[in-house]
Amino acid sequence: MGAAPGLTVFAVTGIPEVGRGDAVGELVADRAVLSDGDVVVVTQKIVSKSEGRVVACDPGDPTAKRRLAESEAVRVLRRRGELLVTETRHGFVCASSGVDLSNVDEGFAVLLPVDPDRSARRIRDQIRARSGVVVGVVVSDTFGRAWRRGLTDVAIGCAGIAAVVDLRGTPDAHGRELAVTEVCVADEIAGAAELVMGKSAGLPVAVVRGVDPAWLRDASVREEVVRPYGEDLFR
Amino acid sequence: MGAAPGLTVFAVTGIPEVGRGDAVGELVADRAVLSDGDVVVVTQKIVSKSEGRVVACDPGDPTAKRRLAESEAVRVLRRRGELLVTETRHGFVCASSGVDLSNVDEGFAVLLPVDPDRSARRIRDQIRARSGVVVGVVVSDTFGRAWRRGLTDVAIGCAGIAAVVDLRGTPDAHGRELAVTEVCVADEIAGAAELVMGKSAGLPVAVVRGVDPAWLRDASVREEVVRPYGEDLFR
Repeated sequence: MGAAPGLTVFAVTGIPEVGRGDAVGELVADRAVLSDGDVVVVTQKIVSKSEGRVVACDPGDPTAKRRLAESEAVRVLRRRGELLVTETRHGFVCASSGVDLSNVDEGFAVLLPVDPDRSARRIRDQIRARSGVVVGVVVSDTFGRAWRRGLTDVAIGCAGIAAVVDLRGTPDAHGRELAVTEVCVADEIAGAAELVMGKSAGLPVAVVRGVDPAWLRDASVREEVVRPYGEDLFR
Repeated sequence: MGAAPGLTVFAVTGIPEVGRGDAVGELVADRAVLSDGDVVVVTQKIVSKSEGRVVACDPGDPTAKRRLAESEAVRVLRRRGELLVTETRHGFVCASSGVDLSNVDEGFAVLLPVDPDRSARRIRDQIRARSGVVVGVVVSDTFGRAWRRGLTDVAIGCAGIAAVVDLRGTPDAHGRELAVTEVCVADEIAGAAELVMGKSAGLPVAVVRGVDPAWLRDASVREEVVRPYGEDLFR
């Protein structure tokens, strides 16, 4: 009866505008009092900016974004005028290959990080070096979904925190086996963080505190979450 | 600099085995100290049980679950042997029409509630009547997704809490308009709750405290989240 130990989720305030070469992990470590086992969620936008993944995108050319999206895609899955749903080199299926014109100077577009798992590892290492604290890191982005309206934040990279937790075979409360319960905790963590960021508030970092310590391990969104083309029933 | 006000997420413990006719909202109100503006997330399983949505399912018949799933579907989208991906009467696309054999007595299956938005409203009313507290309620279930491995908890019904929040036109941090930012906060809330429930721990209720008060309004998953068949690019 009552309440089990829970999570707290809070945004980190005061992160400055990020530019190429900035150490995102140091910016976070200098502004948040972190504890071992915290999961730091960083939105893709500032990770990409820190990695120089910003390119020119002519605001007067209505085809410019679409052409960038095509150049970032390995496959165009759906096309409605200038709107594309693509598969990126990472294997993500999303609108416009994740190419984004919001929260960037006019005339520019932000591309996804080349290797978001590596980005997460780098941020994690920077936080550990700066503050001595061992955290998990999730790099998040805002994706649409099939069948359901509305966007949610999902994990595109992670380090030190599981992407998918395999509960197959764990007995349920009736002592019977659960057939399939592989939970994508990294996506749920990214979504929880989005709830405190606010899209227009410009808060690109949040902390999720209190996750199951068993989830704190080496991990990869690319290896655990991305469904290979041949395995997918909906591509 | 520092931390913005955040969320807390905690599971409600001590919820007993739920049977037909039980008032789930009263069970929750009697075990959790709730505050106005809390969002109570209740997993579909106990909602369905309280509503008598439990049917016989012969454990010796390997086709029994598939046949139940077919009977609950308006459309079978994909079929791999006995595994079906279906569209339910509500418009949800999920495995086996949400028919579930876990956490129920052997020989039985649990079906989705007939109208999960109505279920959420009923639970909300019960909590208000029992404790005088005005909460939001999300009824959640665990669904797979296209393109990404791992399941996440999503909202199948809601009351008193927005399903999709429309941030279109809210200026970003650069003062430019965001083209599309309709965020499905109900799904993100359901996922956050799942992080504290644990699949095998038998904790079917969690509370998300601290959501943006602007999200506390009349709402409906069916109207806001379910993407109509004709609008969907992936069916």
